[in-house]
Amino acid sequence: MSDTKWTLHPDRFFDPAPAQRTIARELYATVADLPLVCPHGHVNPRLFVDEHASFGTPTDLLIIPDHYVFRMLYSQGVPLEALGVPSNDGSPVEQDHRKIWQTFAEHFHLFRGTPSGIWLKQELIEVFGVEEKLCGANAQAIYDHIAAQLASPNFTPRRMYERFKIEVLCTTDAASDTLQDHQTIRDSGWRGKVLPTFRPDAVVNLDAPNWRANVDALSAAVGFEVDSYGKLIQALEARRAFFVEMGAHATDHAALTAYTGELTPHEADAIFQRALKGAATADDATRFTGHMLMEMARMSIEDGMVMQIHVGSFRNHNLAVFERFGLDKGCDIPVASEFTHNLRPLLAKYGNDPRLTLLLFTLDEDTYARELATLAGHYPALKLGPPWWFHDSLNGMRRYFDRVTETAGLYNTAGFNDDTRAFPSIPARHDVWRRASANWVAGLVVRHVVDMDDAHEMILDLAYRLAKRAYKL
Amino acid sequence: MSDTKWTLHPDRFFDPAPAQRTIARELYATVADLPLVCPHGHVNPRLFVDEHASFGTPTDLLIIPDHYVFRMLYSQGVPLEALGVPSNDGSPVEQDHRKIWQTFAEHFHLFRGTPSGIWLKQELIEVFGVEEKLCGANAQAIYDHIAAQLASPNFTPRRMYERFKIEVLCTTDAASDTLQDHQTIRDSGWRGKVLPTFRPDAVVNLDAPNWRANVDALSAAVGFEVDSYGKLIQALEARRAFFVEMGAHATDHAALTAYTGELTPHEADAIFQRALKGAATADDATRFTGHMLMEMARMSIEDGMVMQIHVGSFRNHNLAVFERFGLDKGCDIPVASEFTHNLRPLLAKYGNDPRLTLLLFTLDEDTYARELATLAGHYPALKLGPPWWFHDSLNGMRRYFDRVTETAGLYNTAGFNDDTRAFPSIPARHDVWRRASANWVAGLVVRHVVDMDDAHEMILDLAYRLAKRAYKL
Amino acid sequence: MSDTKWTLHPDRFFDPAPAQRTIARELYATVADLPLVCPHGHVNPRLFVDEHASFGTPTDLLIIPDHYVFRMLYSQGVPLEALGVPSNDGSPVEQDHRKIWQTFAEHFHLFRGTPSGIWLKQELIEVFGVEEKLCGANAQAIYDHIAAQLASPNFTPRRMYERFKIEVLCTTDAASDTLQDHQTIRDSGWRGKVLPTFRPDAVVNLDAPNWRANVDALSAAVGFEVDSYGKLIQALEARRAFFVEMGAHATDHAALTAYTGELTPHEADAIFQRALKGAATADDATRFTGHMLMEMARMSIEDGMVMQIHVGSFRNHNLAVFERFGLDKGCDIPVASEFTHNLRPLLAKYGNDPRLTLLLFTLDEDTYARELATLAGHYPALKLGPPWWFHDSLNGMRRYFDRVTETAGLYNTAGFNDDTRAFPSIPARHDVWRRASANWVAGLVVRHVVDMDDAHEMILDLAYRLAKRAYKL
Repeated sequence: MSDTKWTLHPDRFFDPAPAQRTIARELYATVADLPLVCPHGHVNPRLFVDEHASFGTPTDLLIIPDHYVFRMLYSQGVPLEALGVPSNDGSPVEQDHRKIWQTFAEHFHLFRGTPSGIWLKQELIEVFGVEEKLCGANAQAIYDHIAAQLASPNFTPRRMYERFKIEVLCTTDAASDTLQDHQTIRDSGWRGKVLPTFRPDAVVNLDAPNWRANVDALSAAVGFEVDSYGKLIQALEARRAFFVEMGAHATDHAALTAYTGELTPHEADAIFQRALKGAATADDATRFTGHMLMEMARMSIEDGMVMQIHVGSFRNHNLAVFERFGLDKGCDIPVASEFTHNLRPLLAKYGNDPRLTLLLFTLDEDTYARELATLAGHYPALKLGPPWWFHDSLNGMRRYFDRVTETAGLYNTAGFNDDTRAFPSIPARHDVWRRASANWVAGLVVRHVVDMDDAHEMILDLAYRLAKRAYKL
Repeated sequence: MSDTKWTLHPDRFFDPAPAQRTIARELYATVADLPLVCPHGHVNPRLFVDEHASFGTPTDLLIIPDHYVFRMLYSQGVPLEALGVPSNDGSPVEQDHRKIWQTFAEHFHLFRGTPSGIWLKQELIEVFGVEEKLCGANAQAIYDHIAAQLASPNFTPRRMYERFKIEVLCTTDAASDTLQDHQTIRDSGWRGKVLPTFRPDAVVNLDAPNWRANVDALSAAVGFEVDSYGKLIQALEARRAFFVEMGAHATDHAALTAYTGELTPHEADAIFQRALKGAATADDATRFTGHMLMEMARMSIEDGMVMQIHVGSFRNHNLAVFERFGLDKGCDIPVASEFTHNLRPLLAKYGNDPRLTLLLFTLDEDTYARELATLAGHYPALKLGPPWWFHDSLNGMRRYFDRVTETAGLYNTAGFNDDTRAFPSIPARHDVWRRASANWVAGLVVRHVVDMDDAHEMILDLAYRLAKRAYKL
Repeated sequence: MSDTKWTLHPDRFFDPAPAQRTIARELYATVADLPLVCPHGHVNPRLFVDEHASFGTPTDLLIIPDHYVFRMLYSQGVPLEALGVPSNDGSPVEQDHRKIWQTFAEHFHLFRGTPSGIWLKQELIEVFGVEEKLCGANAQAIYDHIAAQLASPNFTPRRMYERFKIEVLCTTDAASDTLQDHQTIRDSGWRGKVLPTFRPDAVVNLDAPNWRANVDALSAAVGFEVDSYGKLIQALEARRAFFVEMGAHATDHAALTAYTGELTPHEADAIFQRALKGAATADDATRFTGHMLMEMARMSIEDGMVMQIHVGSFRNHNLAVFERFGLDKGCDIPVASEFTHNLRPLLAKYGNDPRLTLLLFTLDEDTYARELATLAGHYPALKLGPPWWFHDSLNGMRRYFDRVTETAGLYNTAGFNDDTRAFPSIPARHDVWRRASANWVAGLVVRHVVDMDDAHEMILDLAYRLAKRAYKL
């Protein structure tokens, strides 16, 4: 075993200048132990259905489902098969979880200076009590250590939820979802708060994989045939009502571009009919999504759900990987985005309505200062979500604060959300945000831009209050 | 009343590392008290016509005309009506200036960490002697305090101009303007130097609001009918000559894009005739503006006026606000810009001519390092204006220095201009620039990129000399 | 003479916070004296053919061939003629090298805070032992000093190569090049390692200046008529084989955009035939280059040469300068670039093949975090080259580390290359990179993102190992 002790420095991620570091530490201390508000993410609610559920092996938990992790090894020539990523066609992949773990450990240096590296280290130390830096030599011993913990009753998803001090955890659920897992959790009497989020992309984006099957699933969920645009609207309204009843506070929409634009019902139906026949064009899909985003804004004004739009990911860029392994395999690549022109129709119709809360997320940081901060600094309905995906990192957060807050103001932002399917990484992710926030505010204090009274309010807002307010939690 | 004392820290905005801070302080001290050179802005010359003019109430001065201020409150749900912003249609808006001030004070936390917050604080402390941090509780007392000062003879625009040590203040004036206010100021014998700037957008951009009426105003100003492209050129040349005679050193041009391209006189006239008939297309407008920018460059070579181009603002993005409240209501939103292709025709014809000074301003910071610094670092005619509008901020200035100067060199930039209509914010704005400049140069010194001899030259250039040189003042 | 002593501070370019500076110094010390690996650049191999070759006068060496230097003076109104830049048409330019040097010295302040300023200072001090800051007053004395050194046998190209501790120096050579200079160097028995790089742009980009003549030169080199697309492929394969035999490890490709896309052989030949007739369109050129990039990737998989693509330079933007002075005269201007869509065809076909190493270079930093880091962090074939051209600077390197490494990981980057034709600037350029790297890693250490064990590995990778690995040297 290596003799490198692994510790988490109490001042980690703070500026090295002592004046700023001291204030960052003071501010961070006031929020370090606050409950975690998790208004957007991809944790599977099923985890919390069974009191005694297990996460499986260390490899099940930390490698196989985490595309942040395996994309990095893949980029350096490790086949996904060797990492146990299940194939679509059932062709064989590595089944020996210890061997996969060994491969992971031997490549752990690839995560130097990366957010995944930061999260994994903190997770291994804080959640699992690992005391040595992971490497090839100690890989099996650490595997044993984690496996032993995962087998204990203190490491079920529910116990970890409680230990993490999660106040609320919102999942992301298809429009056609029965929300049976959510119902079971509610019925179980467990005090954890797990809420659904309404995500209708699979039926609203005509070019979504398996669109037709998704529409059929929606028909099944509502009990009538969704065979026209009018029926689609009716079905979505019915499902939204159900989600609200089940505790949903928000909807979520992913689109390649921020294009919005209204169609007449006649135009919308003509496109929908073409799609049912498998004859919709790429342009049809763009226009339909653009129209449906406007419809979603209208419905949000009516039912009060916060609307999230995530823009700019070219999904499944690597077709060979997609065909063999499916969605979410680390090959979604951002594209340049445009909001000023694209969002104008939606904002013209709904942007001045204070009943709407529209949260925007971008993968194109160039739009932060140019478009998003200026839009959010004007339109009452608009707020900016936290740095997303690749930008949910120390540098990404610094750039976000740097480019967004001067123009948008802090109060047109929506705090943090972890947006993760990797449940045990949640505390580390919030901790990085809280530390980055404390360090940013400390930088303003030490430059005499804000005073300590303001700073104490700001760090509380960033760590806890802004997310609750934005999502009405 | 709150007991929070409000002070301006002498080291504000400097880096917290003591080595850099010490040098920044030393450099700043050498320029802190230099006169203010204001080569571009939007202060109304009428202010200086009457020796005894008053700014009105604190609300008249600081809130109602300042879209930087009211956009932030609007974005958080405060209606513009409640802030006394006058409506176009005369429908009622709040008239109680104390009540508006109270609303402003109660939302003052929205400006935490924003440039508006920095300017307002410095203005209230330095110009008006406010000693407590503005909040709801002390709003009325501070209102009384400012109102009392504004009523005193020491707070007329002319006395403030003198107190601010302004060396020259350039206004921005329509091509058809009689410049009567400028004439009156000159005739008055007052020693303040207030110069006009020639801005012909209203007649040159065919899609400008009220374009036809603007052309009629131009006809009236020149005393002949501007009914052809030839007459337009003749009229603009006549007006430029008049502006030069009245002391103008520069022209200013706003355009959505940097597109330039020459038309034949025949093509230009065909478009102009269509515009007169109200039949010009969007493409006509783009091509005409692109052509007129080239004509303006030609005229600048002939009459020596410095040419400014401000690119990339989508004006009046929020149509509902525009229709109800008019121009400049905080809803102009930037768009991505392109200079390399767009400026090529103009630069091919005039870019190598050292008689031309063309100053570029952008709202798209992505063009700083990629296009603007490389163009300015080559073409003799080209220089870069300071960070503009949303980027006239501590972070905006840091990013500008960071991305522009390595490639363009400091000497292809044009120093600072405050670009403001908020007259009492002028000293604070220049102070932010001087401090940001001192801190940037100190960063170069402490990293041993430049020595102290160079640093002393550079801070003088940044604070004073570059602007004078670029605008030939 | 000025009495300003010129020295290089041992802590130059490090952060002023003592904690970070101390670690940066420690890390830098471990790599400061490592040999220089130069896998991409534009040094003329002829320099090394003759044991006794001379660089000429100081002006020959440092001004006339260096477009980084003369573009800055040109931008401030100094004609290229006055700097001795040779004209295409033989019209007279300044021949007095002392006078040119004087002009340069009198404008030396233009380089304050620029990378050229940093390189020139270090070069003058370290390579030539200049002890005073260059200015108009000491220009002639310093000229004498450098001229004396250049005349000594210790300042031949070969002796400087050895003194610089260059381990390998790759040149850039046309596809039709006989590589005679390389052969002569090999035959001479000198121990310096100077390797060719295969750059076929002149025949592959149909819009390259003198394309037809370039094809003829290729025909001459292969000994058969390149009169069809099939013959072009055959010729390129033959030349690649020859380059490999002559020690080439890499190819290099410059393109305005990253567009890739496969043509059928029939389509490719139709375009090629149009080009031979002088009838190829701009679209033909784009599609042909896009196709040939894919062919080059295929050939790289076959012959093992590393493939470099440099994207986004609008060459010869200033047509008047190009016509009078030719290529590479400081008027190449970057344009916005796009990789996600453009590279997809090439990556779909070859991106998952670990036999391919494709190195990408961009002039559009906006693509770092958005597109390049995410692509390189997924595709096994892809790595990112170092910050290129205008971004080969302290700020450019900081931005590169900041935006690239979190998502791509350090190990999907390719270390440093100096990319220069200014041979004596090579040590200064590598030194800037090594110091910037040490400072970046120190920043991670002091923020407790990586530990010192990792830091020591990372600085070795950055300074030496990554470049060797990426280029298989």
